[in-house]
Amino acid sequence: MSIDTGRVWSPVITPFTADLAPDTARFVAHCRWLLDNDVGLAVFGTNSEANSLSVDEKCKLLDALIDDGIPAERLMPGTGSCAIPDAVALTRHAVDKGVEGVLMLPPFYYKGVSDEGLFRYFADVIERVGDERLRIYLYHIPPVSQVPISLSLIERLLAAYPGTVVGVKDSSGDWDNTKAMIDSFGADGFQVYAGSEPFLLDTLRAGGAGCISATANVNPGPIAALARQWQDDDADDQQAALIRTRRIFESVPMIPALKAATARYSGMDSWARPRPPLVELNAEQRQTLFSRLDDIGFDMPGVPTGN
Amino acid sequence: MSIDTGRVWSPVITPFTADLAPDTARFVAHCRWLLDNDVGLAVFGTNSEANSLSVDEKCKLLDALIDDGIPAERLMPGTGSCAIPDAVALTRHAVDKGVEGVLMLPPFYYKGVSDEGLFRYFADVIERVGDERLRIYLYHIPPVSQVPISLSLIERLLAAYPGTVVGVKDSSGDWDNTKAMIDSFGADGFQVYAGSEPFLLDTLRAGGAGCISATANVNPGPIAALARQWQDDDADDQQAALIRTRRIFESVPMIPALKAATARYSGMDSWARPRPPLVELNAEQRQTLFSRLDDIGFDMPGVPTGN
Repeated sequence: MSIDTGRVWSPVITPFTADLAPDTARFVAHCRWLLDNDVGLAVFGTNSEANSLSVDEKCKLLDALIDDGIPAERLMPGTGSCAIPDAVALTRHAVDKGVEGVLMLPPFYYKGVSDEGLFRYFADVIERVGDERLRIYLYHIPPVSQVPISLSLIERLLAAYPGTVVGVKDSSGDWDNTKAMIDSFGADGFQVYAGSEPFLLDTLRAGGAGCISATANVNPGPIAALARQWQDDDADDQQAALIRTRRIFESVPMIPALKAATARYSGMDSWARPRPPLVELNAEQRQTLFSRLDDIGFDMPGVPTGN
Repeated sequence: MSIDTGRVWSPVITPFTADLAPDTARFVAHCRWLLDNDVGLAVFGTNSEANSLSVDEKCKLLDALIDDGIPAERLMPGTGSCAIPDAVALTRHAVDKGVEGVLMLPPFYYKGVSDEGLFRYFADVIERVGDERLRIYLYHIPPVSQVPISLSLIERLLAAYPGTVVGVKDSSGDWDNTKAMIDSFGADGFQVYAGSEPFLLDTLRAGGAGCISATANVNPGPIAALARQWQDDDADDQQAALIRTRRIFESVPMIPALKAATARYSGMDSWARPRPPLVELNAEQRQTLFSRLDDIGFDMPGVPTGN
């Protein structure tokens, strides 16, 4: 990974056919567009509806990307799961494909579990995969998972598995926590990614790695540009512009909003379709989103089109 | 289901070998002991660590029960999952085996999802399984799933799928909610199960179906006895005794407590082992549990023993 790339990743949204099957061709084309915009592919994240996909579906989508010639080092698939056998199967498959790393949720069904239990979970997955090519990025997203990755858990995993546990995505939305992760572990090369681009500049200035952000699905170029130009004089202005766009997507439910925007700018209506339990934006939400995007002259230049 | 059975079900705890694989023989033996105590088998529930098992592991355990001759009408496997393909695969397998019904969690990764999205999820599973033998019990356990099954969702599902959506397990711990479910839908034959036996007598008196309770794993005989004798003069005394025992198990983490007690009374230490992210009781918790159980003369008479 060069110094100018690898700072921005997108949890790639997953298109579905009318029968709710993953639409592989559209998925691959969207991934290529993101790569063309200098955004890496954190496929199978929260915004990918990854937990609404089976392990088999995820393995097949990953295979399709590799078979299409997408560089494995630009892939950071999500592989965490409630069940160790599922996490092991998907992680092993990803490692066999040579991915840059995997982004791992903690098991998220039981709430209030101990750091000891979470440590055993990650340790068990690491040892069952048993491959020195494995590189794990921990996924801290307490608003959704409800199961946090604490600083003390990271410390313990780093001590036990140096070179395997290599980073974290912090989707807490709490800058103090992101800063604490960087300050505690960044000096040793541990890569701390903010969970969204409003924190991108602060993260890079503090010594963090970049961001892994939902909105990189729809606004990849400008986000990746700031990641390259963060030491330029206009970096704060760039950051402010990114935040304005982000807030528009946050004003309605995020995942359906990303899909609605992609449907609009690609001309492919089926992009708007989520899998249950998510639902598409209603007419009012769509109108709110689109008119706000028009107000700022938003576009998705070069996004693959069709119908 | 006769009037005297089918009122009490247990989310059967799952034994694991030293390598954390399901211990099929011990599982089958424990199930037989529960059946001997007039308790049905709600295998693959929260207390079964079902979400820590893969779909394939659950299918194989179910097959083992059927192959051992356990009556399918005494089985109510949990089949809900975050991903529709997983829920469909496990539900279809269970229906093919002729089970009494399936107990379905809502998809539980995304929080704050709409009733519309949950309706679509259950509708999609029902239509993909496409088998008129399918009988679904909805599983309302907001303290863990964080995704509730509302009264309006039940109403809508009942209207769309009468004869398929046949009941609910209410593990909210909120009697007013259980009562509202019975009052709203019980008269039409909808079966409302309380999520634990402290509510058993109230549930039966109000016209509910019974209970599906963690502690039925360790105290099956007395719980099933109250379900048979709830109109007897000493029913309130029986209920009070059940609550005393339940409170002891609730005084430490419940799932490891059930497993620790089973290990103690069966003599099989391996029963104490959970899968991560759960951990076994520590020495102090074990001591607390066992001394309180000794104080009330607790036992698990007839539980399969070994070492």
